[in-house]
Amino acid sequence: MAKIIIGAGSNLGNRLQNIRQGLKNLTDAGVKIIKISSYLKNPAAEGTAGGEFLNAAVLAETDLEPEPLLALLHNIEKDSGRPQPHQPKEARSLDLDIIYYADRIINTPNLQIPHPRRLQRWFVMEPAREVAPDFCDPVLKKSLKKYVMPENMVVISQASALRKRLSAVRESGRKIGFVPTMGALHEGHLALIRACRKEKLFCVVSIFVNPTQFGPAEDYHKYPRNLKKDAELTRKAGANLIFAPTAKQIYPTGYRTFVEVAGLSEKLCGKYRPGHFRGVTTVVLKLLNLVQPDKAYFGRKDAQQLILIKKMAQDLNLPTEIIGVTTVREPDGLALSSRNLYLSPAERKTAPVLYQTLLRIQKDCAKQENSLKKILKEAAVRLKKNPLIKLQYLEAVDPDTLEPPEKAGNKILVAIAAFLGSTRLIDNIIFQIGNGKISKKSA
Amino acid sequence: MAKIIIGAGSNLGNRLQNIRQGLKNLTDAGVKIIKISSYLKNPAAEGTAGGEFLNAAVLAETDLEPEPLLALLHNIEKDSGRPQPHQPKEARSLDLDIIYYADRIINTPNLQIPHPRRLQRWFVMEPAREVAPDFCDPVLKKSLKKYVMPENMVVISQASALRKRLSAVRESGRKIGFVPTMGALHEGHLALIRACRKEKLFCVVSIFVNPTQFGPAEDYHKYPRNLKKDAELTRKAGANLIFAPTAKQIYPTGYRTFVEVAGLSEKLCGKYRPGHFRGVTTVVLKLLNLVQPDKAYFGRKDAQQLILIKKMAQDLNLPTEIIGVTTVREPDGLALSSRNLYLSPAERKTAPVLYQTLLRIQKDCAKQENSLKKILKEAAVRLKKNPLIKLQYLEAVDPDTLEPPEKAGNKILVAIAAFLGSTRLIDNIIFQIGNGKISKKSA
Repeated sequence: MAKIIIGAGSNLGNRLQNIRQGLKNLTDAGVKIIKISSYLKNPAAEGTAGGEFLNAAVLAETDLEPEPLLALLHNIEKDSGRPQPHQPKEARSLDLDIIYYADRIINTPNLQIPHPRRLQRWFVMEPAREVAPDFCDPVLKKSLKKYVMPENMVVISQASALRKRLSAVRESGRKIGFVPTMGALHEGHLALIRACRKEKLFCVVSIFVNPTQFGPAEDYHKYPRNLKKDAELTRKAGANLIFAPTAKQIYPTGYRTFVEVAGLSEKLCGKYRPGHFRGVTTVVLKLLNLVQPDKAYFGRKDAQQLILIKKMAQDLNLPTEIIGVTTVREPDGLALSSRNLYLSPAERKTAPVLYQTLLRIQKDCAKQENSLKKILKEAAVRLKKNPLIKLQYLEAVDPDTLEPPEKAGNKILVAIAAFLGSTRLIDNIIFQIGNGKISKKSA
Repeated sequence: MAKIIIGAGSNLGNRLQNIRQGLKNLTDAGVKIIKISSYLKNPAAEGTAGGEFLNAAVLAETDLEPEPLLALLHNIEKDSGRPQPHQPKEARSLDLDIIYYADRIINTPNLQIPHPRRLQRWFVMEPAREVAPDFCDPVLKKSLKKYVMPENMVVISQASALRKRLSAVRESGRKIGFVPTMGALHEGHLALIRACRKEKLFCVVSIFVNPTQFGPAEDYHKYPRNLKKDAELTRKAGANLIFAPTAKQIYPTGYRTFVEVAGLSEKLCGKYRPGHFRGVTTVVLKLLNLVQPDKAYFGRKDAQQLILIKKMAQDLNLPTEIIGVTTVREPDGLALSSRNLYLSPAERKTAPVLYQTLLRIQKDCAKQENSLKKILKEAAVRLKKNPLIKLQYLEAVDPDTLEPPEKAGNKILVAIAAFLGSTRLIDNIIFQIGNGKISKKSA
C-alpha cells in the first residue's frame, strides 16, 4: 500500500456534500482514507468562475498505481457532475488532485507528482500539513510541518481561515507583524508595511473600513474603497497576507462589547468626534486578537490614536508591541492621508499651511521669547485669516497623557485639526521644549 | 574548553549587583562567559530566610576541571559576603551552582553534576533553556528546549515571570487551561481546576481579589484572603501554577482602560452593582491576555458573569474557549460561595431556601398550570415572609441575551439574589420550558 495525499476542492453547488460524496466514492473504490483535514474557505483565484472554494486534504493508502488512481479521481469528478476533460477556469463541483504519492516523483504530460503548484497554494499545503505533518515532500526533502509558505501574498476574508493560516506561520517559528488600515493605501501605509518587512516579520495587512469609528454625519459611506488597487500596492510593498473582512463578520448581529481608554479618548479629536476612539480601540483590539501579532505598526500622523492604542495595549497586558512610524509627507509638507483625495485643487494648494503652522510654532518656541500660550494664540489668529481653512482645534499637550503642557516633561505634542471645505485634516508635531519654560511663561 | 551552565541567584542586598559582580569575578578568573539569561524574580522557598530571589543562568566555557571550578564558585560566593560553608536555609547574597559541565555525570559527596535538583526548579531550567536551548541534558538525554517541567506547582507574582514560564510551556507543545479566582477557594473552584486537569491542560490558577469589581460600600477589604491555604488546595487539586499578582501590578498608577459588554452588564446583578461587570470583564480580559490560555473555566453559579465573559470572548475574537462548569452545592443545596463564610449559624441554616425556591419554580413550570409570571410572583411572596431573607431580585430571562423570557427559546435562566444579614448570595437554575408556553400564559 502506498501513502498518498489527495487535495479536494469545490466551488459549485453543495460544496461540502460534493467533497464528502467524492471521498465516499474513493473509499468505495478501495482507497483507504486515514485522515481528513479541516475544511478551508478560500476565495476563487482571479478569472476562475464560481464562488468561494471549500478545500480539504486527505491522507490515504492505496494499492493503485498513480495512473489508475488519476483515472479513478477523474471518474469521481465526472460523477459529481463535472464535465471531463475539464477546462482550467471553470467552476468546479469537485476537484480531486494527487498532491503526493509516497516518495515518487513523476513528470509526464498527463501526470505530475508531487502536484507542481502545491507550494504556492496555502489551501493545499496547510490541510496536507494538518493530516500528515511528518510526511516528507520528495522534492523539497523536508517534512510538511517544516515547510514555510513562500512569500506570495494571499487575500483572506474569513477569520477562521486567517487563524489557520497564521497558526501555521507561527508554528514554522516565524514572528508576525501587523499593519491595520482602512484601505485607500498611500505611501504612509506603505511605510508601515516596509517597517514591518525590515524586521523580517511575516507581514499581515488588514483592510477594513470600520463603521464604529465614524460619526453619523461623517464619511463612512463615501470613504474610498478599492481592494484590487490596495492589494496590488500591498503586494509590491512586500506584505504576506491581506485580511479584508466584511463589516458583518467583524460586527455580527448582537455585537455589544466595547473597550474605552477613559480620559484620553475625550481629548483633542475626541471632543469633536464622540465615540470615534471607542470605535478605534475596539476594532484594533479585535484585530489584534485575530492576528495575535508580535508587533503592530501605526502612523504617527494619527498621534492621539497611537497614544490611545499604546495605552490600551499596556493596560490590557496585550502581548503585542505597538510601534509608531514617522509621518510621510508630500514634498510641500502636507501629511499623507486617504482623505487628501477629497480636496479641491484650491484646498490642496492651501493644505500645507497646517504643517507650516506647526513648524512655525516649533520655531517660535525655540526662540523662547513668548509663552507657548501666546504662540498658539497667534498661530490660531493667522489661520483664521485664511478663508479656505476652518480651524477646529490647535492644542499643545503632554504626548503621553494628553494633559495640559504645564504638567508636561520636556516634550510637547502640538496637534491641529481643521476643515478645508468639507474635508477634515489633522496633523501634529512633537518637539523638545526647555524644562520649566512653559509653566513660567504661560503662567 | 568545556561548555558549562552556571546557575546564579541572590535574595540578599543589591541582588542584581551581587550577581553581576559574581559573574565579573568569574570572568576575571578565566571563565569565558558566552551568554547570560534574563533575570527572573522568584519567591524564596518556604523556610528559606530573606526575600524574593533574583535568578539567572550563564552559558560559559572553561579549562577548569569540575572540582577546581566548584572551589572557584565558593570563593566568589565568599567574596560577596556569604559565609562558607553555608547553611541550607540562609538568605544568600550570592549562590552559584554548576548546573551542567559538558556531558559529564558526576556523583560524589561534594559534587553532583548535573545539579540534582535542577529538574524541579523552573527558575533554573528556564534561564538555562534560554541561554542554551540545544544543550543536551546528559541524564535525560534530551535538549533543554524539549524538556517539559514536572507537575510541581509554582507560585508566581510577577507578570513578566508568568509570561516567561508560560511561553516555555507553550513551546513544549502543551496546551494551557486557566481558572481565574479571587482566592478563598472552595470545592466549587476545585471543580474548575479538576475540569481543566481532566483535559490534560497545563493548569494556571490566578488568585486576585479584583478591586474594580467591588462597589464602594461592598466587601473588598474584608473579602477573605489566605494565599497559603489556597496554594495548598490548588496544589492538591493538581494545578501547575498560581499567579497571584498585587493590585498595584494589575492596576498601576494611570490605569484607564475598561471593557464593557453593553446591554448585558446592566441587567440582573448589574442593576444593583453598578460598574461590577465592567470590573469583571476588564480584569478577566487582562488575565486572559497575560495567560493566553487555550481554555478558561468559570463556574455556572455566577451565571451572568459566565454569559458576559462568553459574549466578550466572542465579540473581541479572543482565541480562548470559555467553559462553564456545573455549580457545586452543599448537601442541603446551598451553592458554594466564598461569602458563605460570612453567614451566622441561623443565616447558614436558612440559606438553602434560595435554591429550594429555584427548584420549586422549575417544578411549578413543569406542571404548566400557572404562567411563569404568576409562579415567580408567588415565589417572591413566599420568600418575603422569611424574616432572615431580604430578596433583591428573582427574575426569569433568556440565558443568552438576558432578555425577558417572552423572547426566549426553550430554555430559561431563573436567577435570584438576596441578602441574609449583610451577606449577599446569588444562585440560579436553567431549565427547558415548553415552546410558546411562556408567552401565552404570561400574556
